[in-house]
Amino acid sequence: MSNILVINGPNLNLLGVREPEIYGEKSLDQINQELTNIAKKYGCSLEAYQSNSESELVNIVQEKSQTTDYMILNPGAFTHTSIALRDAMLAVDISFIEVHISNIFSREEFRKNSYFSDIAQGTISGLGFKGYELALLSAIDQLSKR
Amino acid sequence: MSNILVINGPNLNLLGVREPEIYGEKSLDQINQELTNIAKKYGCSLEAYQSNSESELVNIVQEKSQTTDYMILNPGAFTHTSIALRDAMLAVDISFIEVHISNIFSREEFRKNSYFSDIAQGTISGLGFKGYELALLSAIDQLSKR
Amino acid sequence: MSNILVINGPNLNLLGVREPEIYGEKSLDQINQELTNIAKKYGCSLEAYQSNSESELVNIVQEKSQTTDYMILNPGAFTHTSIALRDAMLAVDISFIEVHISNIFSREEFRKNSYFSDIAQGTISGLGFKGYELALLSAIDQLSKR
Amino acid sequence: MSNILVINGPNLNLLGVREPEIYGEKSLDQINQELTNIAKKYGCSLEAYQSNSESELVNIVQEKSQTTDYMILNPGAFTHTSIALRDAMLAVDISFIEVHISNIFSREEFRKNSYFSDIAQGTISGLGFKGYELALLSAIDQLSKR
Amino acid sequence: MSNILVINGPNLNLLGVREPEIYGEKSLDQINQELTNIAKKYGCSLEAYQSNSESELVNIVQEKSQTTDYMILNPGAFTHTSIALRDAMLAVDISFIEVHISNIFSREEFRKNSYFSDIAQGTISGLGFKGYELALLSAIDQLSKR
Amino acid sequence: MSNILVINGPNLNLLGVREPEIYGEKSLDQINQELTNIAKKYGCSLEAYQSNSESELVNIVQEKSQTTDYMILNPGAFTHTSIALRDAMLAVDISFIEVHISNIFSREEFRKNSYFSDIAQGTISGLGFKGYELALLSAIDQLSKR
Amino acid sequence: MSNILVINGPNLNLLGVREPEIYGEKSLDQINQELTNIAKKYGCSLEAYQSNSESELVNIVQEKSQTTDYMILNPGAFTHTSIALRDAMLAVDISFIEVHISNIFSREEFRKNSYFSDIAQGTISGLGFKGYELALLSAIDQLSKR
Amino acid sequence: MSNILVINGPNLNLLGVREPEIYGEKSLDQINQELTNIAKKYGCSLEAYQSNSESELVNIVQEKSQTTDYMILNPGAFTHTSIALRDAMLAVDISFIEVHISNIFSREEFRKNSYFSDIAQGTISGLGFKGYELALLSAIDQLSKR
Amino acid sequence: MSNILVINGPNLNLLGVREPEIYGEKSLDQINQELTNIAKKYGCSLEAYQSNSESELVNIVQEKSQTTDYMILNPGAFTHTSIALRDAMLAVDISFIEVHISNIFSREEFRKNSYFSDIAQGTISGLGFKGYELALLSAIDQLSKR
Amino acid sequence: MSNILVINGPNLNLLGVREPEIYGEKSLDQINQELTNIAKKYGCSLEAYQSNSESELVNIVQEKSQTTDYMILNPGAFTHTSIALRDAMLAVDISFIEVHISNIFSREEFRKNSYFSDIAQGTISGLGFKGYELALLSAIDQLSKR
Amino acid sequence: MSNILVINGPNLNLLGVREPEIYGEKSLDQINQELTNIAKKYGCSLEAYQSNSESELVNIVQEKSQTTDYMILNPGAFTHTSIALRDAMLAVDISFIEVHISNIFSREEFRKNSYFSDIAQGTISGLGFKGYELALLSAIDQLSKR
Amino acid sequence: MSNILVINGPNLNLLGVREPEIYGEKSLDQINQELTNIAKKYGCSLEAYQSNSESELVNIVQEKSQTTDYMILNPGAFTHTSIALRDAMLAVDISFIEVHISNIFSREEFRKNSYFSDIAQGTISGLGFKGYELALLSAIDQLSKR
Repeated sequence: MSNILVINGPNLNLLGVREPEIYGEKSLDQINQELTNIAKKYGCSLEAYQSNSESELVNIVQEKSQTTDYMILNPGAFTHTSIALRDAMLAVDISFIEVHISNIFSREEFRKNSYFSDIAQGTISGLGFKGYELALLSAIDQLSKR
Repeated sequence: MSNILVINGPNLNLLGVREPEIYGEKSLDQINQELTNIAKKYGCSLEAYQSNSESELVNIVQEKSQTTDYMILNPGAFTHTSIALRDAMLAVDISFIEVHISNIFSREEFRKNSYFSDIAQGTISGLGFKGYELALLSAIDQLSKR
Repeated sequence: MSNILVINGPNLNLLGVREPEIYGEKSLDQINQELTNIAKKYGCSLEAYQSNSESELVNIVQEKSQTTDYMILNPGAFTHTSIALRDAMLAVDISFIEVHISNIFSREEFRKNSYFSDIAQGTISGLGFKGYELALLSAIDQLSKR
Repeated sequence: MSNILVINGPNLNLLGVREPEIYGEKSLDQINQELTNIAKKYGCSLEAYQSNSESELVNIVQEKSQTTDYMILNPGAFTHTSIALRDAMLAVDISFIEVHISNIFSREEFRKNSYFSDIAQGTISGLGFKGYELALLSAIDQLSKR
Repeated sequence: MSNILVINGPNLNLLGVREPEIYGEKSLDQINQELTNIAKKYGCSLEAYQSNSESELVNIVQEKSQTTDYMILNPGAFTHTSIALRDAMLAVDISFIEVHISNIFSREEFRKNSYFSDIAQGTISGLGFKGYELALLSAIDQLSKR
Repeated sequence: MSNILVINGPNLNLLGVREPEIYGEKSLDQINQELTNIAKKYGCSLEAYQSNSESELVNIVQEKSQTTDYMILNPGAFTHTSIALRDAMLAVDISFIEVHISNIFSREEFRKNSYFSDIAQGTISGLGFKGYELALLSAIDQLSKR
Repeated sequence: MSNILVINGPNLNLLGVREPEIYGEKSLDQINQELTNIAKKYGCSLEAYQSNSESELVNIVQEKSQTTDYMILNPGAFTHTSIALRDAMLAVDISFIEVHISNIFSREEFRKNSYFSDIAQGTISGLGFKGYELALLSAIDQLSKR
Repeated sequence: MSNILVINGPNLNLLGVREPEIYGEKSLDQINQELTNIAKKYGCSLEAYQSNSESELVNIVQEKSQTTDYMILNPGAFTHTSIALRDAMLAVDISFIEVHISNIFSREEFRKNSYFSDIAQGTISGLGFKGYELALLSAIDQLSKR
Repeated sequence: MSNILVINGPNLNLLGVREPEIYGEKSLDQINQELTNIAKKYGCSLEAYQSNSESELVNIVQEKSQTTDYMILNPGAFTHTSIALRDAMLAVDISFIEVHISNIFSREEFRKNSYFSDIAQGTISGLGFKGYELALLSAIDQLSKR
Repeated sequence: MSNILVINGPNLNLLGVREPEIYGEKSLDQINQELTNIAKKYGCSLEAYQSNSESELVNIVQEKSQTTDYMILNPGAFTHTSIALRDAMLAVDISFIEVHISNIFSREEFRKNSYFSDIAQGTISGLGFKGYELALLSAIDQLSKR
Repeated sequence: MSNILVINGPNLNLLGVREPEIYGEKSLDQINQELTNIAKKYGCSLEAYQSNSESELVNIVQEKSQTTDYMILNPGAFTHTSIALRDAMLAVDISFIEVHISNIFSREEFRKNSYFSDIAQGTISGLGFKGYELALLSAIDQLSKR
Repeated sequence: MSNILVINGPNLNLLGVREPEIYGEKSLDQINQELTNIAKKYGCSLEAYQSNSESELVNIVQEKSQTTDYMILNPGAFTHTSIALRDAMLAVDISFIEVHISNIFSREEFRKNSYFSDIAQGTISGLGFKGYELALLSAIDQLSKR
């Protein structure tokens, strides 16, 4: 049974809490529950973590690396600033998909650079919560072909 | 019934024809057939076009604009060079998802700029043929919420 | 009798068809007709072409070069991308005025570079359809002084 | 009756005085007289000012703002250096056309940046004295449609 | 009664502890006490936090957002590096003034970029401890006008 | 008794005259009067000048340098263009605070560079008319410690 | 017998037709004939194509890829703009030499970038029609060593 | 007796745990033990810390500053991102040597910038675990000359 | 008899008045007197002007152009900002030498660009008041060879 | 009889000595001998020099300039660094072809700039030893047309 | 027995001769003698060269390549300018450590680029003469593990 | 008696030999002779060297440093490339004036950067041979004031 790890970076704990008209009414917990259900349906287990702390994210990546087969990573603001998290991803060498809820290419100039896109399997951005689900489907698809 | 238009740019006609060990053994026709089947399953129609010609792509976008509800666009090399195609997309003002089979962020520097990402609903890259399917699922999902 | 050639690039065939509240209610055909009338009044003939295809524009410039005394060129999106069309203009060495309907300086950063402005006689931008008429008046004025 | 203000920046007082073989034999006074005549013909009044002083130009723009309906502005060298004049134009919020006698795109690199083009209605450059006349015709045309 | 939140970033806990001849002899606690007194005088409450941890600052901003009317933020080194803190400020959408004790424009080149200045109400830099007091006066003034 | 000089650059004479809903209803004269009153209360004298002319500002700085103890300078558009005024400030070597009414960091890119910030004692921007008052309080505070 | 494909891009059909004093009196047909003769002498066949259309060039490269052993490519203006043609060359993976009649390094700045030089076997520029002949000799030499 | 502080940044806890064929078989603990032994031999004490957390590193630097005579710092990924740690080093003003196990100049472009090299006594990179030992020898040598 | 015009830009009226230990004890008047004496010795006349006003300098250049054979120009801060003065120099087309008292290459980065160096006959910088004298000797030398 | 000078820069003496599997088994002497034979066949003389010293190359160019009709120059690493050699080539004003054995466009970024390409007659790169021969044929061809 | 080559570039012959208070009182000869003694102690031989001439350094590297096992290279100013020396190092393919006596990261901007760091085994900078000794110890350590 | 050293870099030995209509008919020897005569007149001795070799120039600067009071340096092409010569000038710490015969600001872009201007006493460029004489007069003037 494959284990999938979903990691969300800073401020993503606010999903569903603030500005529901923009970000939708689902909380991160609800999203994670839905992803878990989908994973189960395909015979996979799924664990999800969120932290506003770069070091906690680095620690989770390091600690879970032995028991994780695929990662889905929304680094939030760390997308553009955290080489430490990039290095952790490089060190554990586990395939992952980078997900962004909003379209990072239509926002501030500094959001165009990602420290993860070039080392990710692929990237999904701008498709809202659906993006996590699509990433999960792709992860499951890839795992099934191993 | 929603109509979805899938457009592929230059050299994507070579899919499945050359280097199957890299790009997979499916031809573009097979991919399009699979996408059509999925669309049908969700009660949508789907048309697909490929061209190596920028003007043909511009023409298709213009001509199909009245009868299209959503587009899936893999502009190929035009991603980085065609403002004409961007302008056509802006003019017809139809939501679209930008798809790239390979991870454009891990290739040459000049592939990091896209004339479409900032005006697309979202972007999917690096997830192979699966990327088209995921884009289609997202398109159908969005159409169902209109 | 002087012959004036009016060339319009990609997506300009949409004028008057889409968003009339923005771009006005005149179609490109109507504009060309009005320009032809003005030219006639001053004893000049005028031919007008539009194409979404870079190569067709290059071909027209090459073919019409022997019988054209002045050109009015709105390269559309090719303004910023087509060195091939620039080279054609350089090769036939006919004076021309570059026209843009909208103000290209108040739009995206990449629209600030033109491959034509430095080799044009002059440039008119942001003055709507009127810009073509003004360019024509200037062309006729220059031709009358030869 | 609409009032049109024509403003010329530094060194444009030299027109017709130096190098007539290049800049033509008309002085700025003659040009202004011709523009006044055209304006009259269309039922408009026209006032014209030239100054080598940035502050005088700022003062004129401020003082004339209550009684001016449209401006034609050739900022000369201030095109590339005067944010103070830009701010004055922004503050009085009157539509204007930026005119350059020579083609600023075929000269030194630093002449390619204008502090006025993005806030102007439009720009005419490279068409000699005729450029003022064309700008006037466009201004009158726009005023007639208000 | 309005609540004002004062947040200080990394290394600002060293104020008054090291190099008093440069940074003055007041500790951060003393400064905060003085600010609290001023706030009280104007009928406001004031809370102050300092942390060397980016995630703690993000957490504080999130947690205090419901009970805070205005923030005074000295992000310290995070001024130039923390998009996560910027995103937190954007998410809670509370007016704030950015304060720097030293003049960040006369130091290293990389200190010239701030991830907060463009989203702040205003910025005060280079005026020492007094800067906090001035920011507080301005905050109170703005709150009094709501 | 300390003498404080308040200098305002181009277009700041328009304060309170145009767009009162944006810039407030106070004229520059009223602001200067209020500043004078505050200065008096602290036993200081205050003189205020405004000019749209760079040379007049340079002249004032030179002439007042012997009798001025502190300056408050809002260079307006000259912030980004006048090395001459910077040189005058460097030559007279009097401490000054740079003030901007609006937040220059949330406007056009070219407003991010200041020729004064690195040589000023400090900078206050984005806090409206209040910014002058805060600068004055800081100036008085510094003068009292000499 | 080795097959060599000679491809010329936009505006190269004008060779010998315009400005013979500069570009020489040979037409492209004559050049191609001479190259065919040389190829024959060395036991190779040679086919030559020219097009002003990017898509036609892409199509030719795709279609001829199975029967071509070496290419000589003068992309003309597409040298600096066509990633689509670059991608076609990469996809068919046939050795080629990039040829330019004029010295592209002594012309406009934007002609210094080539999308082909880094993937070509080698480059010859500035040696006029002779450049094609030299490229052909090198191609034949390389083919003879396979 | 001089006290030497060895600080290692994010992901360096993985040394010896992952990819021993690349990074060697020694764990960070073993390295620190060897360094302690060398220090002892020269009559110095040595303490070593590692953390994935920027704030913990800042805290350690602040707390140990009174009892530390020299530091050896491998900031890991923080080399390129942490101005907070730089500021802590500047604040405590203790001589230090920057060490990198791998050659940061032969990796990604963004690893060429260090926020520490210009304020370090010196830098050692690319010499593996040996680099720590060499840094220690240099530190001891410098301390012996005080 | 040749007429030489010496022009000094903003803040150069402060020479000899402030900081004599740095800039020497000579006032600009004394320098001009010495230059006049030297000119006389060689049978030339010399006039000298200084202004803090860009427009006054432009006016002087325009007005004196008919009666001036050579200019010595120290544009002060206008060196780096005044295209208007550059244009005046270009328009009158009189040979001139650019002089700077201090070494502009060892000061702020923005002082490295000059709008005059590329159109001057030559440049002398960093040699103090002596620079004017050397420029005068060179001017006289060149005039004597006409 | 025309004299052709072949000049090779630093490290090209290693040809055929090191890594024959990459650079081929011919030494520079053998290459020069073959070039001499070809030259002879066409009635030309040929001299060849190699040096690792920039000044020796400058001296050779200066000394041989009176007796040389054409040069073939492989500047090696000096391609990217030696303005002195460029100046020597400019001073003697003899036509030359720049040759590079490897494809300099597919190597390090800094090898893309050449101080010779814009002043050379033409450039040949990436075609191995054959490049010298092709350059020689082109040189002879040009000489025969003088 | 391993042979180690120590190479010093331009101006390093001045060590110990000028400014001993800064650079220490040891001459380069003394340093080399000490290094030789250390090498001997570990059973290695050591040869040392210094030259102000780029070509002599290239020659030494070429000539000594057959008999050298490891190099210690302080390229001095050639660090930032000599691609010829870089090419020689690449050609002979011998492991080397780059040494700088002073901290090149805290000096002029142009000293931050090194043509050697990315191809060196490692780099030591800023540790004075001690840097050579540390490099030697590392070299011996590496040689002992071959 | 003061000793003045005149140093000329690469290709300056060609003065008077080639293109006398441009560079004048004086050889470098004649120029040096004239400078020697002027120096003598003022009671100074003068020695002059020219070399095409960077290392020879470095050697001369080092060797003559004990007996030289002032230098006049025309580095020729080394102006833009030789950090080694810059380092030699920095090391010997002797005041010098940088001279260029032609105006380096009106030539290629890469000639605008000088490795000497910021460390020179001053710079004279564009004034032909006269520039050496003016530099000499300035040097003598400065020496007379020591």
